[in-house]
Amino acid sequence: MTVAQRLAELGIELPAPAALGVYRPAVRSGNQLYVAGQLASREGRIVHPGHLGVEVSVEQGYEAARICAVNGLGAVMALVGSLEEVRLVRAVGYVAATAEFDQHPAVVNGASELLRDILGEERGVGARVAFGVASLPARSPVELELLMEIV
Amino acid sequence: MTVAQRLAELGIELPAPAALGVYRPAVRSGNQLYVAGQLASREGRIVHPGHLGVEVSVEQGYEAARICAVNGLGAVMALVGSLEEVRLVRAVGYVAATAEFDQHPAVVNGASELLRDILGEERGVGARVAFGVASLPARSPVELELLMEIV
Amino acid sequence: MTVAQRLAELGIELPAPAALGVYRPAVRSGNQLYVAGQLASREGRIVHPGHLGVEVSVEQGYEAARICAVNGLGAVMALVGSLEEVRLVRAVGYVAATAEFDQHPAVVNGASELLRDILGEERGVGARVAFGVASLPARSPVELELLMEIV
Repeated sequence: MTVAQRLAELGIELPAPAALGVYRPAVRSGNQLYVAGQLASREGRIVHPGHLGVEVSVEQGYEAARICAVNGLGAVMALVGSLEEVRLVRAVGYVAATAEFDQHPAVVNGASELLRDILGEERGVGARVAFGVASLPARSPVELELLMEIV
Repeated sequence: MTVAQRLAELGIELPAPAALGVYRPAVRSGNQLYVAGQLASREGRIVHPGHLGVEVSVEQGYEAARICAVNGLGAVMALVGSLEEVRLVRAVGYVAATAEFDQHPAVVNGASELLRDILGEERGVGARVAFGVASLPARSPVELELLMEIV
Repeated sequence: MTVAQRLAELGIELPAPAALGVYRPAVRSGNQLYVAGQLASREGRIVHPGHLGVEVSVEQGYEAARICAVNGLGAVMALVGSLEEVRLVRAVGYVAATAEFDQHPAVVNGASELLRDILGEERGVGARVAFGVASLPARSPVELELLMEIV
């Protein structure tokens, strides 16, 4: 099954990338694709704004992380025109969270499971960092950064 | 116009890099240049210490981010001896901020606009992540990490 | 002296890597090795859980960072089978800290000094970022991310 077929089966349409400042949504360096931090925005609105440990539940954070991952794939698609030959190297999940929150991996799994389901077990699972940040742009509950590689 | 000419026109002198621990200011890996986190320090003093959302305004944070970028260019210059053949791949803006702060992109633009003005639109705009951290070394309001590439 | 000899001299046994979510402990991209965020866990337990500036002292944070580094070397070893030909490119020290804490470099030096002592001055010192985060998975006081290179 191709990546395009998996996207279609899951009913996922990749959005056009957006940038909230002086940067590019994705940049190529050699065979590597550096994707800018993706917010949990859908059709221009942040989904579940706020902090984990306050008004955002782990389930909502998981859903937000999934949306970040879809936006990240949109940025990769816009840069290289296809997802059939890309592999995840590194993902960073920035979780807006309180000092007491400790379930960051469960939140960021929303992104990691989407990437695995779309790109496959072989190419969709990379190294990862997950941690709690004080705040995120536009009150997004999660921000996701991706490093991909053309295989 | 060369990068050196743009620096001269803007009256910017690149400082010698400093390290606050057991690390190098910049390291080369293949064609990539990894620049260590740069604080908003000028002549050994942090400019506008504190947090965005408390005692540091967005305008002051913007100025601090600009200083971080100048320090980052100083670290690149010290490593490779010239900025004429470098391109920005990735920038990370770590903003010391409260939970309520949401204007991280406006702060980090201080670094991104300086890099664009010095390196040019083609080479000075890369992927980017901006987010709010709990605290930074020496109470710097902003820390900036850069990944450059020799073109 | 080989890296294996230095490890033996310091009495360090590298643990098998663990993953707290849908990711790999380490991934190779070209000559680069991306190591996932390592917590301060030893035999399945977090050492000195909590925040710097609250219940974790700088000395305890230093020790925690050292443990993260040992875990990171374990992940590299599991991926490539040897540490004799690796070089540190970049380290990121995520320190769970209060807004007032400002000694992040002193904490992250626990990792940097271990890496330097094991890999040597030439290969064990890279670029670095150190900053304070709101919270970390499993209440770890420090998380460490490494980028290594096969030389």
